[in-house]
Amino acid sequence: MKLKEVGEFGLIDLIKQDAIVDPGDVVVGIGDDAAVYVPGAGKYELLTTDMLVENVHFDLSNTSAWQLGYKAIAVNLSDIAAMGGRPRHTVVSIGLPPHLSVDFVVDLYKGMKELCREFMVNIIGGDTVSSPGGLVINIGVVGEVEPAKLLKRSGAKPGDLVVVTGTLGDSACGLDLLFRQGWEKFDFAWPLVTAHLTPRPQVAVGPTLAAFGATSADDISDGLASEAHELARASGVGLRLYADKIPFSGEIVQAAAMLGKKPLDYALFGGEDFQLVFTIGAEKIACLPQDGVSFTTVGEVFSGQGVLLVDVAGASTELEPKGYNHFR
Amino acid sequence: MKLKEVGEFGLIDLIKQDAIVDPGDVVVGIGDDAAVYVPGAGKYELLTTDMLVENVHFDLSNTSAWQLGYKAIAVNLSDIAAMGGRPRHTVVSIGLPPHLSVDFVVDLYKGMKELCREFMVNIIGGDTVSSPGGLVINIGVVGEVEPAKLLKRSGAKPGDLVVVTGTLGDSACGLDLLFRQGWEKFDFAWPLVTAHLTPRPQVAVGPTLAAFGATSADDISDGLASEAHELARASGVGLRLYADKIPFSGEIVQAAAMLGKKPLDYALFGGEDFQLVFTIGAEKIACLPQDGVSFTTVGEVFSGQGVLLVDVAGASTELEPKGYNHFR
Repeated sequence: MKLKEVGEFGLIDLIKQDAIVDPGDVVVGIGDDAAVYVPGAGKYELLTTDMLVENVHFDLSNTSAWQLGYKAIAVNLSDIAAMGGRPRHTVVSIGLPPHLSVDFVVDLYKGMKELCREFMVNIIGGDTVSSPGGLVINIGVVGEVEPAKLLKRSGAKPGDLVVVTGTLGDSACGLDLLFRQGWEKFDFAWPLVTAHLTPRPQVAVGPTLAAFGATSADDISDGLASEAHELARASGVGLRLYADKIPFSGEIVQAAAMLGKKPLDYALFGGEDFQLVFTIGAEKIACLPQDGVSFTTVGEVFSGQGVLLVDVAGASTELEPKGYNHFR
Repeated sequence: MKLKEVGEFGLIDLIKQDAIVDPGDVVVGIGDDAAVYVPGAGKYELLTTDMLVENVHFDLSNTSAWQLGYKAIAVNLSDIAAMGGRPRHTVVSIGLPPHLSVDFVVDLYKGMKELCREFMVNIIGGDTVSSPGGLVINIGVVGEVEPAKLLKRSGAKPGDLVVVTGTLGDSACGLDLLFRQGWEKFDFAWPLVTAHLTPRPQVAVGPTLAAFGATSADDISDGLASEAHELARASGVGLRLYADKIPFSGEIVQAAAMLGKKPLDYALFGGEDFQLVFTIGAEKIACLPQDGVSFTTVGEVFSGQGVLLVDVAGASTELEPKGYNHFR
């Protein structure tokens, strides 16, 4: 069915289905001028937004509507997790080219609702408009955090360790694979492509970190090099990263060899891993729980500025804040 | 200067200037993974979002960057006002075609900041990306409302009066004028074009309405006919509107005559007035303060459904919920 057959209001009725998964604090959901909810008592509110533009952030020739919806929510939940918060509600704006089918839009929302349901996030509003220049998705997410558990980029202290969750570089390597004909033949390619198309944000981990003594955090959306610079700059410190400590999946080692690339470059400069990088007092590192997600110490904080990379031979070089920069 | 010369991060530094006008409740503004603020004690949070797409919602050949920024904020503040709330913070996502200049973006934000400063709304975050298919702006606004002052669409009761603020149709008539060569020659055209390009939302009025006994409200973004249907449907009642009671400016009467159009059609089906329409008990109408904004009773609520228009001869017809519908 075509969009013009159901119209804007028919489409909104489809979107509303299963949009609320945790109704407790929702006063008004989709269908009024603004959504209304009850904020958590004694908590800070968090607010983040991300815009995804066709042929900049995604390519409809290699992502499905469902995957795109899932990822659009994931990248925003990751931002809330990086602040130590819990995501609560989301508003979804979509600009739709008229040629897209109603099924495409329904599948897009199914992908969003999948992740929203898992993490008890309500879709409480949005905007649905036409966009002749290509598909545009803008997500806004509100979350909450206990003031004592808020993790900013600015709390890193000299002597802290630098820790990352999961493995790095998988998403960027997966993106490279998508542009290589026949990638589907390689078993090792699938987890990497999945990491790129449907990244899992560290929603459960983020809110626990401050209680375990984390001092600053960021999610890895633009590559570890760029995020390390963000933490260093915001905290007024330097970060030293060790190349041989950065955690890689077995799959990226195989895929990078095939592609003639280095896993380290994907991890440092690739981006879209949506893992967390955080700093934590060295004495606290043993306290981190090891269930379900891996934590790897990849460096340390020093009194100074900038980011240094120590290579396997022990030589130290300044690491540039490269990563994805729009308009460059 | 070109966007690629300042880059994404240089642009964000420009945007940050004067973004916070009411720092009291802002814990973290632009520059971290998410913005952080303290919600109002005992209040509900409001959240609204609107996406504006080039060549759908605006035409850069007849609007300036400043005007566009102003309007993008205005349409969102209007939604908060229509809920009886006070806007507090905003996040701004922009998708920028690479050919746009840095000056354009700075002017866009100047327009936003003008209205934000007036109504003490902070710009606390956002996303800045490239958009090859045209300029896209998505605004999210959070506001707050005392629970007793919340105005939904669903509270209208039979016997209530239907009231609008200001005059209607000016914006749609102004849009028509913009497409008429030489409109600048006509003095009466300027207020109408201004109403279209830089509409003033009823931010001060919205939060007062519930205290004066308003039972439901909507902002007039899609024309009075469409909004009346929204109130009728949400409240489970019928609305009767009187054609001869709808308030028009002197300018629209002159312009419509020149354009061969009817002011009534602009008011009912034109949209983007960003006035408020609300229902209120007949005995309360005298209580509305008459300072600064005009209130006009345009109809009444009856037990039933749908929207009726009573013409000057007293004949009653069903009013269709026409108005702007994306994808139709």
